[in-house]
Order: sequence, then C-alpha cells, then structure tokens
Amino acid sequence: MTSTVFGQNNKEMTEFDSNFSHTVFFWLKNPDNVADRAAFETSLRKFLDNSGYAKTKFIGTPPSASRNVVDGSFTYSLILSFDSAESQKAYQDEAPHKLFIKESESLWNKVIVYDSISI
Amino acid sequence: MTSTVFGQNNKEMTEFDSNFSHTVFFWLKNPDNVADRAAFETSLRKFLDNSGYAKTKFIGTPPSASRNVVDGSFTYSLILSFDSAESQKAYQDEAPHKLFIKESESLWNKVIVYDSISI
Repeated sequence: MTSTVFGQNNKEMTEFDSNFSHTVFFWLKNPDNVADRAAFETSLRKFLDNSGYAKTKFIGTPPSASRNVVDGSFTYSLILSFDSAESQKAYQDEAPHKLFIKESESLWNKVIVYDSISI
Repeated sequence: MTSTVFGQNNKEMTEFDSNFSHTVFFWLKNPDNVADRAAFETSLRKFLDNSGYAKTKFIGTPPSASRNVVDGSFTYSLILSFDSAESQKAYQDEAPHKLFIKESESLWNKVIVYDSISI
C-alpha cells in the first residue's frame, strides 16, 4: 500500500511488481479544460489512495517533446502493478474503482487498457 | 542497473522510477512461431541487460483471460522507467538499442510507444 506516492513529492521510486502490470491510457474529451483535468486527477488519486490492491500507482502525461514513433495523443497514462492476476481482478471489483469510473467516465471519450504478465 | 531482473527468477519486485516511463507494445508478424518468439526474447533481453539507462525492465505478454475492454492483441509488452527524459533519450541512442532494432525489426509488423512523465 504505497499511499505515500501521492504526497507532496511524487517524483520518487516505488516498487514495481512484475507479476502483473495494468496500463491504461485515457483520452479526455476536453484535454485543455483545467476544471476537467483537476476533476479527473482528484478522482483518480482518491481511487488509488483507497485501493487495497494496486501497486506502483504511476500517473503520467505525455512529454512535450515526443518522437514521431511515439503516440503522444493521450491525456493521462496509468501504470499499476499487482502481485497476481487475482489481485488485479479484485481491484477491478473494488468500490473505489467503481466510484472512480462513475465520477470520471463522462470526462473521457477513449480508454485503452493493456494487461501483461511477466515472462 | 537492475541486470539481475532477467536472472532465473524474473518474478520479483524492481524499482520503478516515476520520473519517466516508456511503454512499448510489439505485434509480431508470426506470434505463434516459437523460433521467432525465442529470437525476439533473446535479442530484447540482451539489449536490456546491456542498457546503461533503462530501469524496471518489465517484459510481458497478454494474460490468457482478458476482459473485453482490454486490448490483448499485442505479442509482447515492455515497461521501462528512467530517472529523466535525458536518460530516456540517451537510451534511444545506445548501441545495444540500435542492435536490438537491427536484429528484431523484421519480426514485428506493428509497434506502439507511449512515453509519460509523472504528474
């Protein structure tokens, strides 16, 4: 439970559990709208702070200078890790996850999820 | 330099540097070809073992049971982290990276890269 990740200094090293990674890219409907961004970030951080399963809890945005082979069109990225596929499934069903989706799904128009297990 | 990540037991915790994440998804031309997969994995692991900049070094494949909102069509995923955008740029230009691309680019027909900086 690395709930300190979103303290005052988010630029820190956190543990990455290589058993299961869960990567999500969000495209907001209004990526330049400051209020929409604030609402999304607040909702996402509240969710992750209250998740009993997610590790790593990286939230990112595309760098301003991107190479042409890179898809920098998304608004937010999320990289989480889990100790097992079972933990990731439990995370899907957690109340904080469902609340985040209810609060924020009107803000995005596209989401891509990639799950991976370590080889 | 977490070169031990690809030792006998890859199922371990590694540090994730939240300053810069680099996520790559590869679609091999022949994802069911055992020799192609072995060649790709060998080339990628050699590259990462010799990279002076990449951290985390997660290599994954899609779980067999995937939810319908998840894109499980890729063959391999790669999640790396870096202490800065400058380190990621240096990694791009490393000789081991160029060798990996030279050795393996004939094996894939699609690559998507997402770079992110922590918010």
